[in-house]
Amino acid sequence: MNKPIYLDHASTTPVDPRVLTAMQPYFSKIYANPSSIHDAGRKAREAVDKTRTAVAKILRCLPEEIIFTSGGTESINLAIKGIAFTRGKGQIITSAIEHPAVLETCKYLETKGFVVTYLPVDKYGLISPADVIRAICKDTILISVMYANNEIGTIQPLAEIGAIAKKHQILFHSDACQAGTLDLDVAKMKVDLLTLNSSKIYGPKGVGLLYVRKGIALEPLLHGGKQESGFRSGTENVPGIVGFAKALELAQKEKLQENKRLTSLRDHFIQAVLAKISNTHLNCQPSQCLPGIINISFAGVEAESVVRYLSQHGIYISSGSACSSQQIETSHVLKAMSLSKKWAGGSLRFSLGRATTKKDLNQVILILEKIIQSLRRIS
Amino acid sequence: MNKPIYLDHASTTPVDPRVLTAMQPYFSKIYANPSSIHDAGRKAREAVDKTRTAVAKILRCLPEEIIFTSGGTESINLAIKGIAFTRGKGQIITSAIEHPAVLETCKYLETKGFVVTYLPVDKYGLISPADVIRAICKDTILISVMYANNEIGTIQPLAEIGAIAKKHQILFHSDACQAGTLDLDVAKMKVDLLTLNSSKIYGPKGVGLLYVRKGIALEPLLHGGKQESGFRSGTENVPGIVGFAKALELAQKEKLQENKRLTSLRDHFIQAVLAKISNTHLNCQPSQCLPGIINISFAGVEAESVVRYLSQHGIYISSGSACSSQQIETSHVLKAMSLSKKWAGGSLRFSLGRATTKKDLNQVILILEKIIQSLRRIS
Repeated sequence: MNKPIYLDHASTTPVDPRVLTAMQPYFSKIYANPSSIHDAGRKAREAVDKTRTAVAKILRCLPEEIIFTSGGTESINLAIKGIAFTRGKGQIITSAIEHPAVLETCKYLETKGFVVTYLPVDKYGLISPADVIRAICKDTILISVMYANNEIGTIQPLAEIGAIAKKHQILFHSDACQAGTLDLDVAKMKVDLLTLNSSKIYGPKGVGLLYVRKGIALEPLLHGGKQESGFRSGTENVPGIVGFAKALELAQKEKLQENKRLTSLRDHFIQAVLAKISNTHLNCQPSQCLPGIINISFAGVEAESVVRYLSQHGIYISSGSACSSQQIETSHVLKAMSLSKKWAGGSLRFSLGRATTKKDLNQVILILEKIIQSLRRIS
Repeated sequence: MNKPIYLDHASTTPVDPRVLTAMQPYFSKIYANPSSIHDAGRKAREAVDKTRTAVAKILRCLPEEIIFTSGGTESINLAIKGIAFTRGKGQIITSAIEHPAVLETCKYLETKGFVVTYLPVDKYGLISPADVIRAICKDTILISVMYANNEIGTIQPLAEIGAIAKKHQILFHSDACQAGTLDLDVAKMKVDLLTLNSSKIYGPKGVGLLYVRKGIALEPLLHGGKQESGFRSGTENVPGIVGFAKALELAQKEKLQENKRLTSLRDHFIQAVLAKISNTHLNCQPSQCLPGIINISFAGVEAESVVRYLSQHGIYISSGSACSSQQIETSHVLKAMSLSKKWAGGSLRFSLGRATTKKDLNQVILILEKIIQSLRRIS
């Protein structure tokens, strides 16, 4: 078998060696509790403070507006429940294609008496700002719309939605877990809360952040030692936080060049697949998509089977998002896009990353073509 | 300055080199998302499953009874809020000397209509099982008592309290964050829920676990992709989980020998300090204490000052728990023990660990003696 080809970067990424190097001293050398007042504690505190300032610079916000958490799911839960429980009641507007962390949190809040409106999307997975305006009512307390979709890559018009939220004095949260290589200026995006995580941008797993604009009241999820300005108790994961910040810094520093490279690889892949394999359908509009995510449907095959056959060839891709891929059911994202049954069952996500080369992709196309042909012959 | 002497192991511990070695492959080699169905995902899943089984063996429980979390604070919040919100209302019994993660969670639940009874402790910080019986009423839904105290080291009579809880059909949770080197057999302790964390037993920060006896309903804190049997959503922190389990395995394997060594060091330290420095008071009963924690009060000095002066000599200790040490106020634990004002202000915690030697301790005693003398002369 050839060297494995990992095209599942939207599920998670390896830790970049530069990130791991940045983390190393904080495991066994500068390891004290940042809350300890002795010099060893102070050094750990300084590392966290310095990191917070560096991250704030990227988001163009104040350091105290950054809350470090254990990952995207926690940040999203903290943002949405935090606002909901502070307000006590009201309506939340979100979209039908959000990550399960948003959708399940909203479903939970529905059981607690909150009203949730799920915005529709068009055939490319785009939310219409006009729909946002229509959904707003006097009870609306929060709008939560993802920056970029994890299954199809569609980038939402955040600034437009943010402007609407601002005009109606409604808080606006965005799940930007998949958007670590896009522009993250919170003022430009017009967000009040923003979720980012580390494990999708070559940082360590188990760490994320929530940006919360100064002055916003938020009920904490975790009570205790009042770390993170009281918003998130628990001893700070110092190596994790340092690694996350390094990963974010690298992702942002290299984004122009890397996004250009990935866009070119993506376009090559799409063109070749559509040319070589008949009866295929592209599930996004490349001009409005993340450079690294390609979602294509193949008629007459079951996506799960293709994933497994590719895996046997050392090629790792995903059908739908990894978080729901252990249940075999049509992705909620493709359903919301009203994708016809012909295409919905055979949808594959190829997500490219830093290690991906044109040679890899050509190898994948070759094997994919054979697998699709064989499976179609059987069915 | 001499080599620093870290005597703040109860705040946090360095990552053991053997733990770091166990974690390393999971950062950049076996890095896939355990929810991905391809081979790379399967390998990550297998690592988590294998780890869960190993941890279950230590706790003598079923693998599915282990929920991995982001640390002690999250586990405690999940346990107490999880039970409370599942029941909807009722009384919770805890002790006055719990960690802030328990106390602040209970305070929060009081604002939501729950009734909390805080058990008193005796002058050694011990809870009386008779007080537990007295506190139980028809509305009691949960008893939460820590295994060993983080400030004074007192080990509570868990099995006795557990038997009372069982008899009254009340759920019993214990925060065992400080007790990773004690016996962790959940059946012997008679607990229904147990919190453990990694960063106090030479494992990485940002990971912990909650044991939940099979069949117990628990409202999740984090909603999303339904990882950890739906109890805790969020992509698994694979290297963290692997490191935590390795740390727990080592702590348990080496506990007899290491606890014996620490007990001998502790007894030597206590004896020497009490002999050399007048007007001191031991805040625990060594026979009922963790081997690594020594809490001594020195009359006529302010604990914070001693901590800072010792730090200037490269000696790192704590006054009260690290989590509350940035606020200068008498520890809630010492208050609950009714420690007189004479002793309460000058209480210091020396917490020993794997790297601690007799030579270190003798050096600390020498410098401590001088600092206490100087400070007393000034005041």
